[in-house]
Amino acid sequence: MIGNTFGRLFRVTTCGESYSGAFRKNANIPAELWGGLAVIVDGVPAGLKITADIIQEELDKRKPGKSKLATPRSEADKVYIFSGVMQDDRTTGAPVCMLIPSSDIGDYHIKQHTDNKDLLRPGQAAYTYYKKYGEHSDYLGAGRASARETAARVAGGAVAKIILDSMGIDVIAFTVESHGIKAGPFSYETAKQNYRMNDINCPDAEAAELMTKDLLEVIKEGDSCGGVIEIIAKGVPAGLGEPVFDKLSATIAHGLMSIGGVKGIEFGDGFGVASKKGSECNDTPYYDEETGRIRFKTNRAGGMLGGISNGEEIRIRVAVKPTPTILKDQLTVNVATLEPVVHKFASRSDPSLVPRVYPICEAMVRMALVDSILMSTGMRSLTDMNARWDDL
Amino acid sequence: MIGNTFGRLFRVTTCGESYSGAFRKNANIPAELWGGLAVIVDGVPAGLKITADIIQEELDKRKPGKSKLATPRSEADKVYIFSGVMQDDRTTGAPVCMLIPSSDIGDYHIKQHTDNKDLLRPGQAAYTYYKKYGEHSDYLGAGRASARETAARVAGGAVAKIILDSMGIDVIAFTVESHGIKAGPFSYETAKQNYRMNDINCPDAEAAELMTKDLLEVIKEGDSCGGVIEIIAKGVPAGLGEPVFDKLSATIAHGLMSIGGVKGIEFGDGFGVASKKGSECNDTPYYDEETGRIRFKTNRAGGMLGGISNGEEIRIRVAVKPTPTILKDQLTVNVATLEPVVHKFASRSDPSLVPRVYPICEAMVRMALVDSILMSTGMRSLTDMNARWDDL
Amino acid sequence: MIGNTFGRLFRVTTCGESYSGAFRKNANIPAELWGGLAVIVDGVPAGLKITADIIQEELDKRKPGKSKLATPRSEADKVYIFSGVMQDDRTTGAPVCMLIPSSDIGDYHIKQHTDNKDLLRPGQAAYTYYKKYGEHSDYLGAGRASARETAARVAGGAVAKIILDSMGIDVIAFTVESHGIKAGPFSYETAKQNYRMNDINCPDAEAAELMTKDLLEVIKEGDSCGGVIEIIAKGVPAGLGEPVFDKLSATIAHGLMSIGGVKGIEFGDGFGVASKKGSECNDTPYYDEETGRIRFKTNRAGGMLGGISNGEEIRIRVAVKPTPTILKDQLTVNVATLEPVVHKFASRSDPSLVPRVYPICEAMVRMALVDSILMSTGMRSLTDMNARWDDL
Amino acid sequence: MIGNTFGRLFRVTTCGESYSGAFRKNANIPAELWGGLAVIVDGVPAGLKITADIIQEELDKRKPGKSKLATPRSEADKVYIFSGVMQDDRTTGAPVCMLIPSSDIGDYHIKQHTDNKDLLRPGQAAYTYYKKYGEHSDYLGAGRASARETAARVAGGAVAKIILDSMGIDVIAFTVESHGIKAGPFSYETAKQNYRMNDINCPDAEAAELMTKDLLEVIKEGDSCGGVIEIIAKGVPAGLGEPVFDKLSATIAHGLMSIGGVKGIEFGDGFGVASKKGSECNDTPYYDEETGRIRFKTNRAGGMLGGISNGEEIRIRVAVKPTPTILKDQLTVNVATLEPVVHKFASRSDPSLVPRVYPICEAMVRMALVDSILMSTGMRSLTDMNARWDDL
Repeated sequence: MIGNTFGRLFRVTTCGESYSGAFRKNANIPAELWGGLAVIVDGVPAGLKITADIIQEELDKRKPGKSKLATPRSEADKVYIFSGVMQDDRTTGAPVCMLIPSSDIGDYHIKQHTDNKDLLRPGQAAYTYYKKYGEHSDYLGAGRASARETAARVAGGAVAKIILDSMGIDVIAFTVESHGIKAGPFSYETAKQNYRMNDINCPDAEAAELMTKDLLEVIKEGDSCGGVIEIIAKGVPAGLGEPVFDKLSATIAHGLMSIGGVKGIEFGDGFGVASKKGSECNDTPYYDEETGRIRFKTNRAGGMLGGISNGEEIRIRVAVKPTPTILKDQLTVNVATLEPVVHKFASRSDPSLVPRVYPICEAMVRMALVDSILMSTGMRSLTDMNARWDDL
Repeated sequence: MIGNTFGRLFRVTTCGESYSGAFRKNANIPAELWGGLAVIVDGVPAGLKITADIIQEELDKRKPGKSKLATPRSEADKVYIFSGVMQDDRTTGAPVCMLIPSSDIGDYHIKQHTDNKDLLRPGQAAYTYYKKYGEHSDYLGAGRASARETAARVAGGAVAKIILDSMGIDVIAFTVESHGIKAGPFSYETAKQNYRMNDINCPDAEAAELMTKDLLEVIKEGDSCGGVIEIIAKGVPAGLGEPVFDKLSATIAHGLMSIGGVKGIEFGDGFGVASKKGSECNDTPYYDEETGRIRFKTNRAGGMLGGISNGEEIRIRVAVKPTPTILKDQLTVNVATLEPVVHKFASRSDPSLVPRVYPICEAMVRMALVDSILMSTGMRSLTDMNARWDDL
Repeated sequence: MIGNTFGRLFRVTTCGESYSGAFRKNANIPAELWGGLAVIVDGVPAGLKITADIIQEELDKRKPGKSKLATPRSEADKVYIFSGVMQDDRTTGAPVCMLIPSSDIGDYHIKQHTDNKDLLRPGQAAYTYYKKYGEHSDYLGAGRASARETAARVAGGAVAKIILDSMGIDVIAFTVESHGIKAGPFSYETAKQNYRMNDINCPDAEAAELMTKDLLEVIKEGDSCGGVIEIIAKGVPAGLGEPVFDKLSATIAHGLMSIGGVKGIEFGDGFGVASKKGSECNDTPYYDEETGRIRFKTNRAGGMLGGISNGEEIRIRVAVKPTPTILKDQLTVNVATLEPVVHKFASRSDPSLVPRVYPICEAMVRMALVDSILMSTGMRSLTDMNARWDDL
Repeated sequence: MIGNTFGRLFRVTTCGESYSGAFRKNANIPAELWGGLAVIVDGVPAGLKITADIIQEELDKRKPGKSKLATPRSEADKVYIFSGVMQDDRTTGAPVCMLIPSSDIGDYHIKQHTDNKDLLRPGQAAYTYYKKYGEHSDYLGAGRASARETAARVAGGAVAKIILDSMGIDVIAFTVESHGIKAGPFSYETAKQNYRMNDINCPDAEAAELMTKDLLEVIKEGDSCGGVIEIIAKGVPAGLGEPVFDKLSATIAHGLMSIGGVKGIEFGDGFGVASKKGSECNDTPYYDEETGRIRFKTNRAGGMLGGISNGEEIRIRVAVKPTPTILKDQLTVNVATLEPVVHKFASRSDPSLVPRVYPICEAMVRMALVDSILMSTGMRSLTDMNARWDDL
């Protein structure tokens, strides 16, 4: 409601910001307790196996500092399970809490932000947060609008992944465009096999090389650039999503559009439908003997009819804008003096969200799917899960 | 939660379908009570002036049968206020209920649908509803997935409009693409002045003529086509929207994606960001002496930073697919026999959503805005409204 | 959220007030459409048989004007189904809408209320609504705070009853105290057999006679009086309710305390626990061979442990205050002049809620139970219901 | 929704259980990170001063091991602020996260619970949790149904207290009955002055002595006992609470009934109304020159009319049952063998909730009040708070 919770029955509540721990430095307290991100996942069925290692594996995918395409920032992003998991690493039905302490809260970062606190960073959220929360709003490192917030989403999404894995549902996200260089289309199989083969997460090795070369050029200029991520959810049963206002497409769009930097979303043919006729858009249904189910000869709809899953692959594309903080002189305004000023902001941001945003896209779609599954099954335990899954 | 309510503090709950009244025909009861659409709007501040005529004006915009571009279907879509409005047509703070009785429930429609109930209409939601609700799901005229459902949204949005009008916020939606023919870009002023000058709701008269001619051709073929609608919200103060998961962009995307037929959404530059650099995307802030506010020299962000309104025009584009039911032979499957079958479905659907979907787009954005305003002000009456508006 | 919806997955949204239709009198429109109460029930599984007659049966239980113990007011309270029910009177999974037009909106009632609108009725909600909504708040007949609002609850509860009936769960409410005259305790069987045998709804004929005689005396004095209603839910499976904040006891208490006039709630031994020891309060569990379940030798807990149902009868008691509007001179204040004034208010209120509040208590408990069942099963249709019920 | 969150706009989400940290013991990780309770408070206005010390002060009130009337259990209940508080200990509008690591997770406790895991503890929630979550439900120390869970509520309530303090609203809870020994009635002033003068938290020193002596006797027997807590909220403005289903009384009842062990709730005269006439129950309104407000000569209603606050003191009483785990032989059932068995359970529970439940009652009422205030004001910062408070 107030913004920090996603989901209805599978509810992920997050909190934390980059630098609040800096105000609680205290040698008598373990540094991991000074401050950081936390996430509480409510609605987790009992009996799931969850370990810090399983969650860490997802988190490491978005970890900064891994490649030459990303910020050299050195957040450890180490996750600790704090509640809800007990004997044999099994969930009990109680909410699962995970902590990700902030480790990179050196005074120089704070000084840097404080020195420039009156200069609006073009493209950043500090101004709107100031308008919302007033003088005490967090002006350090973008606060809740920081990309760092997404680490908590990924931890929450990792719990959703464990549930989906047990049901045979796979969600993958990969790069299909970077700074105008396009790749694809890809079948699920091709994408699955190849998408994590390169730093830019594109299933086409050749395109990946072009994108990488181009991005390095952009980095050299001190600039940043945008791109497009495609997401496929494979194995989703028909019938998920609610009618009218809470269509599966609507709740997924809600989740994806809540990721900082996302400016567009498409399902299936997306904006391509604008130039097409109905006869070119409809997918022909048929009875598939092998699976004993109604299936569709094409998937222009992207796996949904009336916003409810139809059993085909869900296909989504999101556009992410270039990171706003660039290493170039920019004209801006000093909010104290109201004077225009040219400034080059220091930045630990990535020059492109493209290589690092895929685990967050996967996380949001996974959360939305598990939430929809709980809405349709009410399951509370692995036992329920097995029994009710077949009803779908 | 279960899908038929939109909003958190400004809550619009809708119900109704095209044909349920047909099962309650009874000469002893006024026909208006047999069945129809209803909408309950909760969270309406006290003291607003609402009349059936004001609501009807919005409803008439989406009314079928008005032009040669639309279905000849003859739903009257007459609205009755049923609660929440009292002396001098003023709201009391109680929920406002509106009824839109179904008037076109002739037996031949029902027979037509019943005769073909085992044939899946390609592109339609009947299959996914069947998978969700089973044998008793509504197979007549698409049930809750029918475009008719949107009349209730428009009635709810009309209440939101009255609130926004009193605050000087204007939301307009207009056509910028139909079947590949593009128009624009348009300034708010140009769009406002010209967009309702033609049946296809496009502010550019010349483009409108091309679109219309093309659409008539498509209609002649018995086919349908898609397009793009642009939405502008003018006068929105900075600071609306919640952080993280409930960004204003996310809740608007949720609302717009819940409209049947919408397959893509863009804010500001949208998918255009994918080929741009940060230096080409950031909007430069400056102090505007005239308004005494921070403003931005460009509006590539579409009026939001970090998903929270920044005081500039909110700019959104949605892609709508061609209406799935077309007057052409289509290959489909008989779900009873599981055999393939070629069939030409009768249809009262529009050949294009483009001319008629704009009031629904406006309605959803208006609801989302009023909801965000209530989240930031908690206002309960016109008096509060005046007092707290200035705080924003 | 804004107050007019109850439930999470089984959601009952109500609206309407006694007199708003009076402002839309129009000879060209059927009087049933001028105004009244409406209720939208979302989350109703598909395949349930619902008719206006079934709903009317519940509504008639709270209908005024039935006995000498009640107000002579003549609201017809006739219910019309408006959506969500189709072939063979079966639900489709779409929201069920019901309308209860106001029939008793004569000008003299309005004049009576308008003439005295500046005199606060002691014990009534007009003052607090005025503080909340300001000058446009509804001052006629108590608006949303009127007992009339409860007719919509009963209609919503009737839908819940149909679901519970299909599951073998029975909820009954009956009188155990009126103006200090007590009756009981009663077994479920005794209560079920006898509670609707008399106007005051008390299962003990002798006590009922004493209560009735006393209440007639109170009526003669122009006064009113309070009492206690007991509620039993029989056949509830173990495991319903959520942990911590949304215990079944908490959501039921929420629902019952939302009924106008309720001032106290007890589960099981209730306030009796305050003078007891643990050894006198604990219920001894044992294995019951007949049912193959764990059961309890006593039921002091009232069917819940840790706020979650334990499979025993749920036992609740609520205290209802005397109706505030009495036919006696009362000292009050004129809010316009701020002067004290003695006034005898005309009233169409009941002299006691005791004989008429039981269907509302039943309705709220039924809604809370169905909501909890949906939370634990996610069922969408009769087929789901049969399959998942056994999992509980 | 799934039970671990309270509130709509002021949202307190809790998690954690007594023993989950025991499964993550690891010498390489600070023990404070193994496991414990966490609470995320969303909707906290920006600019509030919050320190661990201020929160700790509230937590210490419910801390076990403080007096001879309580369990000798030695949980440190030390609280750490983890997010949402920055410069000068001020909130930023971001969610406030607090951690309370478990410190008392010795292997002997776990062995004790594990050895007896098949024996149902009479009066405890293990059975209902097992029915809900199945074989993986938490059988150690009552899991989420443990009184330990309430430490997180108190931390959340402490944040609410800081908000209410800034508005001049005071909430106090004190003992008015213990094992049948009664005290009071007390004016707010008397209660405020005297209620924390003794271990049993009763404002009447003489009654406190009787209660204490009696409770020590009960403890000597190895038994436990119940009592009644009264709560007063002083300084609440008129107009808080929503109509119909979300009356302030209903949301407070929801919150209080969600506290483990609470079996009854009364507002104002409570069950006393059952023997009264309307003429004895109504509170007479008058114009109070001093405050310039309408006030009431008596407060039988307990500060609410139509469930909305009327500006008078809110008066509530809750009945708490005797702690179920007693140091006496009890007959129960072995769920593995289904045989009856007599067992004396070891316990670290308190012999009476009466001395320790008051901070939890205060916490729940405070949360409900702040939530209602946000619903009526939408405030996001101290600045808003000052501006909008006067509107109420």
